[in-house]
Amino acid sequence: MSGVLASDLPGEEWVACDTIADVLDLTASGATAFGVVPIENSLEGSVNITLDWLAHEGGLVIAAEAALPVSHHLLARPGVSGEQIEGIVSHPQALAQCRGYLRNHFPGVPQYAAESTAAAAERVIRDPEDLAAIGTRLAARIYGLEILASEIQDEANNRTRFVLVAAQSRWTEEQQREFCRRHGASKTSALITLGEDHPGALYEVLACFARERVNLTRIESRPTRRGLGSYHFFVDMEGQWWDPAVIRAVEGIHETGAAVRDLGTYPVIA
Amino acid sequence: MSGVLASDLPGEEWVACDTIADVLDLTASGATAFGVVPIENSLEGSVNITLDWLAHEGGLVIAAEAALPVSHHLLARPGVSGEQIEGIVSHPQALAQCRGYLRNHFPGVPQYAAESTAAAAERVIRDPEDLAAIGTRLAARIYGLEILASEIQDEANNRTRFVLVAAQSRWTEEQQREFCRRHGASKTSALITLGEDHPGALYEVLACFARERVNLTRIESRPTRRGLGSYHFFVDMEGQWWDPAVIRAVEGIHETGAAVRDLGTYPVIA
Repeated sequence: MSGVLASDLPGEEWVACDTIADVLDLTASGATAFGVVPIENSLEGSVNITLDWLAHEGGLVIAAEAALPVSHHLLARPGVSGEQIEGIVSHPQALAQCRGYLRNHFPGVPQYAAESTAAAAERVIRDPEDLAAIGTRLAARIYGLEILASEIQDEANNRTRFVLVAAQSRWTEEQQREFCRRHGASKTSALITLGEDHPGALYEVLACFARERVNLTRIESRPTRRGLGSYHFFVDMEGQWWDPAVIRAVEGIHETGAAVRDLGTYPVIA
Repeated sequence: MSGVLASDLPGEEWVACDTIADVLDLTASGATAFGVVPIENSLEGSVNITLDWLAHEGGLVIAAEAALPVSHHLLARPGVSGEQIEGIVSHPQALAQCRGYLRNHFPGVPQYAAESTAAAAERVIRDPEDLAAIGTRLAARIYGLEILASEIQDEANNRTRFVLVAAQSRWTEEQQREFCRRHGASKTSALITLGEDHPGALYEVLACFARERVNLTRIESRPTRRGLGSYHFFVDMEGQWWDPAVIRAVEGIHETGAAVRDLGTYPVIA
């Protein structure tokens, strides 16, 4: 995403974090102006840690989104060959996305979970064993690792939607409007919590969008953590939070007894 | 679930598998009459491997469901004390659900991912290091491990819905009807794939259920793997696949251009 954003955020310093939660925490606290986190993958679905953080912690809005192809590479310390590899380390989703490759090329070699592909690359550097990490070209460069094999993901149709997030207090509606004007088409994300749980409650909410011809591009349920069977819903819609049709839809949803929280109006920049 | 099912499946032999996919594969192939897999957790949400298997592999129906409390225990080889533990191994979801406990009691101790809590317990037996596994009392008994600490999960409100699955060819509608009669209340699960993607397509589908007063207890979207923005939906409804209202709702959904696949009508037995 750094390339895509370079023109919008000139001169920004980039900080790497080990975990998604660290990125969100740092951004919410104001220590960083923006954070970049994955929110959805075309094969694995939602990135739950991101959705749950947005729902349960709050204070962040989405400022932009970009869908990027996922490329996984096998990284090892310089001089270490494939035959020497004693273990493979990466984020569980990266390991899962290279399952076929690992089965064919490294059968029986133990796999270790890391909190991120960056953390995996770092572990390769400091582990006494000859490990290989599944990670990015950027990680190879940062940690001085060699690429043993490139593009090792099993499915070509592998894309991840990343979002740029900002602290709500620092990323005003005025800035959202300006950012959307500069980039054209825009989307809005919202979190909907149904009121008293009754048959058809979700249907009533969707009816409000349909009546105003607001098109939903995505709806995703997540547990509220109040117990099995209790959900809230993330929706992505075409349009902007301040569009009259969206305002009327949100008013209608409030009338059904459900709550709607604005998670940001933002441009799609890739 | 074994206790719950003992009266329904007397004399069945129980087979342990390392992964959810193994359970589903064995059951679909007819090697086992039934499989028991988790489908949803009150904190972590859907178990995607189960949903995706049901969607993409096919051939299985849900025969029963049971929601059980989740209890995690810390297991080590007999004679190994907490101070000696060099690493903690478990399924990533179990590690996540004990994050607070591990941070307080085992700060800085490395964590390793296993494919299941059973596989974690097995690793404790054979690993040269003194590892501890997060797992069940049953695993402690099977693998001869000692319980160093019990009930170490961070949140009390932690329940998992398990489903009993059977091969579609072996678990007929007649058997489903008989099983539901014996246990009372029943639910039906279905997979809905929208037709040509157009604004309001999901809303039209939900309208069919609402019109027939069929109550949906859950709706969950998963990627179809055809690319970002392409989803199908798992729905759970009150009622039975052969109820007139459900039949009319399904007919209506077909008329919208969407496809509906029956994933089984089954009793809720716990």
